Amino acid sequence: MNEADFIDQLLRPLISAKGAGDLLDDVAVLSGNGHPVIVTTDTLVEVRHFRSGDDWFTVGQKLVRVNVSDILAKAASPSECLLNLTWNPEYGEQALRLLIAGMAEDLSRYSIDLIGGDTTSHSGPVVLSLTLTGRCLRTSGPVKRQGARAGDDIWVTGHIGDAGLGLRFQHPCSELESILNARYLLPDISASGLAAMLAECATASMDLSDGLITDSAKLASASGVRLELLLEQIPFSDTARSIMTDPVYEASFFDVIDAGDDYQVLFTARPEQRGFIEQYAQAGEAKLSRIGRVDEGKGVMLLQDGEDVADTFRRGWNHTLSR
Amino acid sequence: MNEADFIDQLLRPLISAKGAGDLLDDVAVLSGNGHPVIVTTDTLVEVRHFRSGDDWFTVGQKLVRVNVSDILAKAASPSECLLNLTWNPEYGEQALRLLIAGMAEDLSRYSIDLIGGDTTSHSGPVVLSLTLTGRCLRTSGPVKRQGARAGDDIWVTGHIGDAGLGLRFQHPCSELESILNARYLLPDISASGLAAMLAECATASMDLSDGLITDSAKLASASGVRLELLLEQIPFSDTARSIMTDPVYEASFFDVIDAGDDYQVLFTARPEQRGFIEQYAQAGEAKLSRIGRVDEGKGVMLLQDGEDVADTFRRGWNHTLSR
Repeated sequence: MNEADFIDQLLRPLISAKGAGDLLDDVAVLSGNGHPVIVTTDTLVEVRHFRSGDDWFTVGQKLVRVNVSDILAKAASPSECLLNLTWNPEYGEQALRLLIAGMAEDLSRYSIDLIGGDTTSHSGPVVLSLTLTGRCLRTSGPVKRQGARAGDDIWVTGHIGDAGLGLRFQHPCSELESILNARYLLPDISASGLAAMLAECATASMDLSDGLITDSAKLASASGVRLELLLEQIPFSDTARSIMTDPVYEASFFDVIDAGDDYQVLFTARPEQRGFIEQYAQAGEAKLSRIGRVDEGKGVMLLQDGEDVADTFRRGWNHTLSR
Repeated sequence: MNEADFIDQLLRPLISAKGAGDLLDDVAVLSGNGHPVIVTTDTLVEVRHFRSGDDWFTVGQKLVRVNVSDILAKAASPSECLLNLTWNPEYGEQALRLLIAGMAEDLSRYSIDLIGGDTTSHSGPVVLSLTLTGRCLRTSGPVKRQGARAGDDIWVTGHIGDAGLGLRFQHPCSELESILNARYLLPDISASGLAAMLAECATASMDLSDGLITDSAKLASASGVRLELLLEQIPFSDTARSIMTDPVYEASFFDVIDAGDDYQVLFTARPEQRGFIEQYAQAGEAKLSRIGRVDEGKGVMLLQDGEDVADTFRRGWNHTLSR
């Protein structure tokens, strides 16, 4: 399949936005409706962000979701995207079709219009970038990392650590392992109403890509506060607990709590919003856990039986760009 | 250098746009001033779009220029960009610094604000994507590929084919070869007033990345017309002519006219605009050549002594995404 056929057969059918001009021009027109428009971009590199051999359909979905989580966390509604695809023809046309089908599935799920991009190929690892715009639900703009204040509650969506554990199980040997592998392949991002809830009550917010402790430190730094997390409140899934308590796996909190790839949302809110937030959670829109509080100071404390164990758990993730 | 240092030391100094939030958040806010905002993105892959061993400074500049040419051709003013960098640490920190310095040089030249991006690394070829927005000078939006009408003149900026010839001379052995290599490394894009001129008079417009004949066919197809180009009017540089007439190089029109990488602007305009366009050219803003006319029909004719030689010259460029 050449570039023209790829665009004609696989990308053009995904196009509905007027500004995309049916992908027949060199630029796309961004839409706007008066609310501030934000933009994010994430790159997935084969081997580094997904494994060679991972199902291409889920890679396509993941490419969308890692960007969607950024937009939702800012209390914005995903809107339009551009795809930069550097493909390796050795994987064949069926793999390419699966990748695009997975991407299309999730563009549709989150009501995103593809409006442009650039496609090329080489003989190296596949490199995928998606650039995604979002319309802020607040007229003042996105909810930032900055804004958490002493006294705020700290909340997180979904489960922490499933994806990090799943990374071990590319070839799962049990149902537990399959569940976790699926979570690594595909972050479980519940979009329904999340941005609206955050627009209503979040003082600061970000998605978790590099690990709960590492990313909490970023939010703390941006806000000029200290985040105090309670270990016993961190939401681990039953599956993750089963693995962590099974000595066969030699997996512990240490391996899980700051492992990254969760793409859940960490946010802060005033305590008087607890009722509103719990109502949202009880309506079944998303799992939400209150995991600590904001205090004056700096950095992150992870409290276990009153003792700070944050440094023990910090793994962090920082690409080395030179050596 | 790790990712945090890279952002702190090399990228943050380039930041001035308010919407970039100093690169401290997950998203950037796109600015707007009422005029339509367009967006384009181009990916440069090592080996395929630049040569291993090319000066990293010029690679950084080229990354900006291949996107700028798209925006200018649409009669828009370059505005804000996001960088997706997949770096290979083996090249070392000095190379990375040069790449970013080159990019910064041209972001400044074209008054573009860096507002975000994503950086990662792997052991494969370097992959660079830049996503660039532009503000349309026409309130109706971008000048499209569609819009050329029978009777229009066909114009092109700069010279055709220098970059295609330069591709042969990565290790130049003469001044002529050096000049052409420099043109391949770095497209000569004159921004001054070009977008405003196009906004005033262009009926259709696009930048030339894949070759004059190949891209003319795209414009003809989008507009539903035929483009008749006159071979003797195609602007070859004196340097290119010297190479083409020197039998040592075995280079001819065949190798040059549809070779790609020119990043000049091809546009159409009504004949009554000739005076306005020539005045713009005479003011020294940009070299402009009238190279043919639009007629009813379809496709591209390249006329040499009254005979159509277009098919002979067509090389085209179409990435193979599968095999």
